[in-house]
Amino acid sequence: MEKTTTSKLLHRGRNFSFKTDEVQFPNGKTTTRDIVDHPGAVAIVPILEDGRILLVKQYRYSTGKELLEIPAGTLEKGEAPDTCARRELREETGYTAGSMKKVLAMYMAPGYSNEVIHLYFATGLKAGESKTEEDEDITIEAYGPDELLEMMEKNTIEDAKTIAGVLSFLTRG
Amino acid sequence: MEKTTTSKLLHRGRNFSFKTDEVQFPNGKTTTRDIVDHPGAVAIVPILEDGRILLVKQYRYSTGKELLEIPAGTLEKGEAPDTCARRELREETGYTAGSMKKVLAMYMAPGYSNEVIHLYFATGLKAGESKTEEDEDITIEAYGPDELLEMMEKNTIEDAKTIAGVLSFLTRG
Repeated sequence: MEKTTTSKLLHRGRNFSFKTDEVQFPNGKTTTRDIVDHPGAVAIVPILEDGRILLVKQYRYSTGKELLEIPAGTLEKGEAPDTCARRELREETGYTAGSMKKVLAMYMAPGYSNEVIHLYFATGLKAGESKTEEDEDITIEAYGPDELLEMMEKNTIEDAKTIAGVLSFLTRG
Repeated sequence: MEKTTTSKLLHRGRNFSFKTDEVQFPNGKTTTRDIVDHPGAVAIVPILEDGRILLVKQYRYSTGKELLEIPAGTLEKGEAPDTCARRELREETGYTAGSMKKVLAMYMAPGYSNEVIHLYFATGLKAGESKTEEDEDITIEAYGPDELLEMMEKNTIEDAKTIAGVLSFLTRG
């Protein structure tokens, strides 16, 4: 286990920061840890009455292409994950959930980011009007379990939280 | 879809860089994208003859605790993912693989990182001596499918690539 000797803020962004830390191991050796300091996020598996799951398709700047993902978003300052999950589902898909159940928390890139995603299963969905942010251009799609398994086999779903979230739902039944 | 207007390198690290870009939307509006520019990585689901899967337990500085993960590591400059997968499996576990099959590629945090993890299933494993880097203090554990499902239900496995990787293996059979 390593101890922080110095921590330097490199950049404070809208949702998270970049920092670089010097750390020391028990044997006295040192190294650098470059870290994304992230407030955490939520992701939601929205399950329709007919068993299909809602996915959102959006352009992702970092990847240079559109990805098909479960709805997700970053925690706002002081916001509880449950509140954030209901807000993000409504904003991105327009749906509200009768039940929003937290199933797990997962680190997305523990080698360099402290981001934890709180994963929810949303049921009892009621359609409404979506209200995306100006930099979000989102389309909504719905797929059944067999389609989703095939899309993961073919790797047309390429987003890790979506693979982890959908397979968690399908294997927990 | 947004276009880059300026791109600024904030920090060049050992394995990846931090940058901040100004981008413009088709409607003329602009925003900032803070990005981890990452060369990509591999993760391996190592499957023993008896059906158990090897996991590695290691302290993760960003999370402040030990995580149980499938073996993984960053691509070295010019290194092919297949070569990296064999190297990382050997270095972290000591095992060499008779078969190393690529099954998918996944983005870990597309909101702010271009990191893609190439996921492999390794079979025909032969034990050997591990050779971890000086900043890696790793212990190896092995679990059967039922244990893994239970550990994911209980969220004692908290790493996204591990949840996605292990469930991909268990659902593809």
